[in-house]
Amino acid sequence: MHSDPSPVRPVGRGAKVRAAVHAATLAELLDKGYAALTVENVAQRAGVHKTTVYRRWKDRESLLTDALAEHMAMDIPVPDTGGIETDLRALARSLVQSFTSPTGQAVLAAMFTGAAHLPEIAAARRHVFDDRLARAEPVVTRAVERGELAGDTDPAELFKTLVAPIYLRLLMTADPVDETTADQAVRVTLAAARAGALRRARDGDPASG
Amino acid sequence: MHSDPSPVRPVGRGAKVRAAVHAATLAELLDKGYAALTVENVAQRAGVHKTTVYRRWKDRESLLTDALAEHMAMDIPVPDTGGIETDLRALARSLVQSFTSPTGQAVLAAMFTGAAHLPEIAAARRHVFDDRLARAEPVVTRAVERGELAGDTDPAELFKTLVAPIYLRLLMTADPVDETTADQAVRVTLAAARAGALRRARDGDPASG
Repeated sequence: MHSDPSPVRPVGRGAKVRAAVHAATLAELLDKGYAALTVENVAQRAGVHKTTVYRRWKDRESLLTDALAEHMAMDIPVPDTGGIETDLRALARSLVQSFTSPTGQAVLAAMFTGAAHLPEIAAARRHVFDDRLARAEPVVTRAVERGELAGDTDPAELFKTLVAPIYLRLLMTADPVDETTADQAVRVTLAAARAGALRRARDGDPASG
Repeated sequence: MHSDPSPVRPVGRGAKVRAAVHAATLAELLDKGYAALTVENVAQRAGVHKTTVYRRWKDRESLLTDALAEHMAMDIPVPDTGGIETDLRALARSLVQSFTSPTGQAVLAAMFTGAAHLPEIAAARRHVFDDRLARAEPVVTRAVERGELAGDTDPAELFKTLVAPIYLRLLMTADPVDETTADQAVRVTLAAARAGALRRARDGDPASG
């Protein structure tokens, strides 16, 4: 939950290489799946040397984790609209939009089928999720500063409450997932937050996960 | 959501065969996975003729769906404690207990890895989920009768809100899943219900999924 949200961005050539390698990693994942993902293929597709990749990422798992986190960061920007309700709505709607797009569906499939049981995929999933939580935390901080949410609101609990019904529908029930789903998730989350059901855990206080 | 929750139970020998075939189906699934699941192997393991199985289930998918629904119905009984909070807590806690047990973990793995992308597995998942919703609906009906919940509370929305954070943790974040998770899900769900965020959808009303 408090992992570093994003390393300082390299600029110039470094940034270009990073972007090319990320794009190649995602493309390889979508084309061939996790099992066939190799640093060699990624390097070739990105038009860089294998050693260039290894200089920045220690193995294909850290590469994959980084590429997925970056993809979601670009695809689901953290909003700052000036109000908690509109912020959460923007966030939930981009999540829905992202995961109902062909790329998003392929990312979900890659993360939840075939390789889903592998510890490294579980770790990647966890890292990407934690990265999202860390990036989105300012949404709650700003709402607290504006007096819209109580100071002891737990950002992680709040965002898990927001995204849980969306993932449930994407992964389990196959109900349609659209703006209605997103807006409904916002209503539930704000109702819970305002009722004090999303407070930070304290000693013996059972509000965390 | 409104599929038939359970066919009329056969009694006597029929019931015994049904139970034996269900148990054998689950055991085969857990031992060998979905790909290797055959009516032949199930029949052999249950000690019955293949034709006996085919007389009751048209194919291995309907057999699997029925066996999983029955397993969850037994493992996660629908409570009737006289109060909505205690009912939901009992339900959420049994869900947690079921899916953190070795059998539950294996069922989750079978439903979400390897075969997860197959349409027949998606259909089975959906059917089992709908069966659960239909069975649990009286919990909400009784709460409405007792005046604990508003009459227009949507049972499906309520139960999805209850289980979503539990599945999120089981499938995505790998946070610990325990009674705390269950109780927290109940708090959020009741807060949302009491704030009117879980009402039945009406014309143009965006509360459904």
